[in-house]
Amino acid sequence: MRAWQFTGVNEPLRLVELPEPTPAAHEIVLAVKAAGLCHSDVSFIDGTITPLLGRVPIVLGHETAGVVTAVGGDVTDFAVGDRVGIPATTEGPGTAVDGGFAEYVAVEARLAVHVPDDVDFEQAAPAMDAARTAYRAVETFGQVTAGMNVGIIGFGGLGSLGAQIAKAVGATVYVAEVNESAWERVRELGVAGVSADIRDFEDAGLDVIIDFAGFGTTTVSAVDAVKHGGRIVQIGLARESATLSMQKITMKEITLVGASNGEKSEAEAVLALIASGGLRSHTVPITFDEIPQYVDKLTTGDVSGRAVALL
Amino acid sequence: MRAWQFTGVNEPLRLVELPEPTPAAHEIVLAVKAAGLCHSDVSFIDGTITPLLGRVPIVLGHETAGVVTAVGGDVTDFAVGDRVGIPATTEGPGTAVDGGFAEYVAVEARLAVHVPDDVDFEQAAPAMDAARTAYRAVETFGQVTAGMNVGIIGFGGLGSLGAQIAKAVGATVYVAEVNESAWERVRELGVAGVSADIRDFEDAGLDVIIDFAGFGTTTVSAVDAVKHGGRIVQIGLARESATLSMQKITMKEITLVGASNGEKSEAEAVLALIASGGLRSHTVPITFDEIPQYVDKLTTGDVSGRAVALL
Repeated sequence: MRAWQFTGVNEPLRLVELPEPTPAAHEIVLAVKAAGLCHSDVSFIDGTITPLLGRVPIVLGHETAGVVTAVGGDVTDFAVGDRVGIPATTEGPGTAVDGGFAEYVAVEARLAVHVPDDVDFEQAAPAMDAARTAYRAVETFGQVTAGMNVGIIGFGGLGSLGAQIAKAVGATVYVAEVNESAWERVRELGVAGVSADIRDFEDAGLDVIIDFAGFGTTTVSAVDAVKHGGRIVQIGLARESATLSMQKITMKEITLVGASNGEKSEAEAVLALIASGGLRSHTVPITFDEIPQYVDKLTTGDVSGRAVALL
Repeated sequence: MRAWQFTGVNEPLRLVELPEPTPAAHEIVLAVKAAGLCHSDVSFIDGTITPLLGRVPIVLGHETAGVVTAVGGDVTDFAVGDRVGIPATTEGPGTAVDGGFAEYVAVEARLAVHVPDDVDFEQAAPAMDAARTAYRAVETFGQVTAGMNVGIIGFGGLGSLGAQIAKAVGATVYVAEVNESAWERVRELGVAGVSADIRDFEDAGLDVIIDFAGFGTTTVSAVDAVKHGGRIVQIGLARESATLSMQKITMKEITLVGASNGEKSEAEAVLALIASGGLRSHTVPITFDEIPQYVDKLTTGDVSGRAVALL
């Protein structure tokens, strides 16, 4: 089978011919149908987080969805023909072992999830990482429920997913985005307000604010804007640190919580949300052959949306 | 009756003769047995938070316990002779209306709590504010339970109460206190460790750290020391702000929550803890006549323990 292999820091991905994987007893093999490209792939390649990789050379690709072509003898949850996604995890394909930038991928069955029939693979792949991360910030840590007033800071890839998730569960959503050219897209979502600064919505009584930008100043604004007893979820990390008013955090009894990646159950929740029509990643479909070219575009910030290779 | 009245910013408390209060339909009147002195009293007097007072002149004293001497016609929860405490609240005696630095005090029955027979008034009074605040930090916001590893930063009045509360619910407690002269008192509590820096206990896997000091640097240390997914409760406020690593808060998925005063139910929980032998405030018993003198001592930081006037 054909695969894009990472062979060393700052080396271009190399197209190689590898044997089609056969499943160990606890594994399944998928024919890859969609493989999302993530900024982590850039960081694996440029040395930033290369030590997290379980082996080099390795086939990258940790946002993968496809159809089961073979199952190991101990596997009971999956059968040949099943539509399956592989939530990103450091112990999974694309990080610990060969990943989804290939025609086939093997994965431990315990790491995989079923993809509902009404979720196409192009949407299922980014649900395994990007959308799941947004879900973790909004739902698992933000605890957003129907009727809440929710502030979303930053309307990039994750932020736009976060705003949709908050809307889908019935919250009233206010968006702060410094780039005014994005405001039209924000408004199309049917939000209650958009502005450059979340403090403009202080009077709305914001129960939860999720900071997808992370410029330090954005967290400071969130501390000002959130209501007494409210929550702030930090997920964006444009700056390493922030100088916060501990007086305001204490007097307003604010909860500030950091959110990182996610869990398998959150990937399943995201797939259900997509199936119900409540969430759609803004994807850029590309071909298998274009994967290295789009990794380069990610490096230079030259992709608007989630690049997903369709096989 | 005799009462100590606040008449204006930076004026000394004035001893006045006031009519003994009679209860409105929804009120009870107590003969004051114990009235705690709080640093807030200093701040009411020196102008810092004087606008929070409901009237001036006013009798201060918002940590009060005593015996019911009269009940209003609509009151069903209290009877003459009941032992009662008045949890501190901005709508209650000593803030909104005349307080406990007097021989008698009237209070709305809905604001009062019963004091168990085996809790003496000297302990009941500080339970209405200081101990309740420590309880809110450790239990309500810290969510400390049996078996947890808990870090306490700062072993002053509130910190020593917080350490006792954490011990009482079955946690293993580690204390960071820069003043080594306090370490002997810390050790007498039976803690697992004491040091100047909470980071010395990072390897203990601290589930929760409560920062009773609030020097900014202490919060930074807590972010370093707390385990992945752990909680930090901010209650001390020695400095207005802190520069925190949002990267660490995010990657470690830390929850940082600010705790302020408290609620009536927390005062009841504290009284139950005192009754069970799990908590004891370090009090300095004084006389009614000594109240102004000890307010002055509080101003200069010259009291070691909670001054409680006993009547």
